[in-house]
Amino acid sequence: MASSTKSSLSPRSRFDGQLLARFLDGDSRALARVITMVENEAPGYREILSSLYHRTGEAKKVGITGSTGAGKSTLVDELAKLFVNQGRTLGIIAVDPTSPFTGGALLGDRVRMQDLWMQKDVFIRSMASRGSMGGLAKATREVSMVLDAFGKDFILIESVGVGQVTLDIAEVVDTTVVVLVPESGDSIQAMKAGLMEIADIFVVNKADRDGADAMAIELETVLDLQRKENDWDYPVVKTEATKGVGVDLLMAHILRHGDYLSQSGTLKMQKENLVRAEIKQLVSERVLGDIERRLARDGSLDEVVAEILGGNLDPYRAADQLLKKR
Amino acid sequence: MASSTKSSLSPRSRFDGQLLARFLDGDSRALARVITMVENEAPGYREILSSLYHRTGEAKKVGITGSTGAGKSTLVDELAKLFVNQGRTLGIIAVDPTSPFTGGALLGDRVRMQDLWMQKDVFIRSMASRGSMGGLAKATREVSMVLDAFGKDFILIESVGVGQVTLDIAEVVDTTVVVLVPESGDSIQAMKAGLMEIADIFVVNKADRDGADAMAIELETVLDLQRKENDWDYPVVKTEATKGVGVDLLMAHILRHGDYLSQSGTLKMQKENLVRAEIKQLVSERVLGDIERRLARDGSLDEVVAEILGGNLDPYRAADQLLKKR
Repeated sequence: MASSTKSSLSPRSRFDGQLLARFLDGDSRALARVITMVENEAPGYREILSSLYHRTGEAKKVGITGSTGAGKSTLVDELAKLFVNQGRTLGIIAVDPTSPFTGGALLGDRVRMQDLWMQKDVFIRSMASRGSMGGLAKATREVSMVLDAFGKDFILIESVGVGQVTLDIAEVVDTTVVVLVPESGDSIQAMKAGLMEIADIFVVNKADRDGADAMAIELETVLDLQRKENDWDYPVVKTEATKGVGVDLLMAHILRHGDYLSQSGTLKMQKENLVRAEIKQLVSERVLGDIERRLARDGSLDEVVAEILGGNLDPYRAADQLLKKR
Repeated sequence: MASSTKSSLSPRSRFDGQLLARFLDGDSRALARVITMVENEAPGYREILSSLYHRTGEAKKVGITGSTGAGKSTLVDELAKLFVNQGRTLGIIAVDPTSPFTGGALLGDRVRMQDLWMQKDVFIRSMASRGSMGGLAKATREVSMVLDAFGKDFILIESVGVGQVTLDIAEVVDTTVVVLVPESGDSIQAMKAGLMEIADIFVVNKADRDGADAMAIELETVLDLQRKENDWDYPVVKTEATKGVGVDLLMAHILRHGDYLSQSGTLKMQKENLVRAEIKQLVSERVLGDIERRLARDGSLDEVVAEILGGNLDPYRAADQLLKKR
């Protein structure tokens, strides 16, 4: 999987060819540059992703999700330190779907991660939603692909556990860790938000607080049925991320889940599903772009809008008309 | 706007013609039925929306958004009672984007609304996300359209203030009310989440709590600049929803904002933007459906997936190939 099919870059992206050469040479600044291109959908970004594709597939992708204040960032930092100490390279993507306007909200809060930033083998990127929810999941998938192609061993994707974005990101990662805190209702909220269905590993963080044991027992009970129906054992890990307590055990379960995915054939299935999703998304993105450009260019959108506002047409018939003209 | 162009329903939807007749006759059960059809995208729902379109445009649509626990539901209930007491009819749509699996999460929590349910002129519907975030905004828009066509004077759309869904819903409504509570950081969270940009009216609820005045002053300061740049004055209303305090003032501001929208010509612009968005969405929905069906039918998706997994192709080139075949 590591050998790349020779990329046939178009003449106008000769510049990108040089960038790509530096990237393949392991230059961190080239990595940052490529990621920025991909995030901004800069000209040539598709060609770059296309040529990097066959270098991907080796990195283990781990999603860490949970509500605001659950201690996700601290947990991710502690995990990152452990990985680095073991000589593994990693990329961290922090995704904040609740922050559509202020880019990099999460990162602003994590000055303490400076020591990680200094580590040569850790690459951190923060992303806030722009344009659309789908856009955020797409950017996360593509940036993760770039980190994978760069050769990172692990990619940790940290995201606030809200609704669809979390579910979209769960489709991208191999292993999903859901972080809960012993506060009244947090596990019920997690169930409501659909987190139980996507979690492979549960963390009860801030385990020194009252109610931590009760929450762990509650989770074990809920998980019993799920365990009977699956080969995986859905471990519940108690941690105190601020003190680093339990993080080594969490890492052990993450590694174990990776082995389980390979051995059970689940990884192969996940990969196939991801490829299908990628193609559908790329095709639809392209088609929609074409339609939007055409509607804008030939003025047909303006025409039908005027007719609708004049009361002679409705949007449903308008859509029919526009589609028949194709 | 009230007279409908005669609908040309296809033969197979003769049944829907009868349903429509009852709907137009003001039958509440027919309303509930049509809404269910629209939510489920049942056969014939497009024709129904198409034929109802020209009955829409009269209802005032008000979005009420804010974080969990801000007291949105109570505020909406109190507003609803005031509206009803003044002889106005209304529909309430409760949107919970954090709840992708459990349909109707919000509604489960609001047994107290039973007294409202009993009111003949109030229609309440709870919606949780299904399929995709975009899907939730679409369903909200379409259900709101049905309530509008049914003749409701006001449509209150209550949603948890998270990210893109809130912004998508803000595009559907005429007036957006953002509900905050005097808790440390709630206004900063609101700014982060982009709520400041979409709010027309601010509510500081639970105004008997410490910090309510400080929060109101903080908001006034932030809003000063915004007020200078716009004709609208962005009022800040303090309420205690559980006691009904301040809700009459909130209603007055909502009505005043409605007048402002009409007089300033903003309403016309909003309507035009909404029509554009509707058409684009309808066209893309249709095209994507066609593509997905075609890919599934002729087996070309399976072919390229196998090639990609075999390492002979990447998803980007695969998308190119599939599009060339069209």
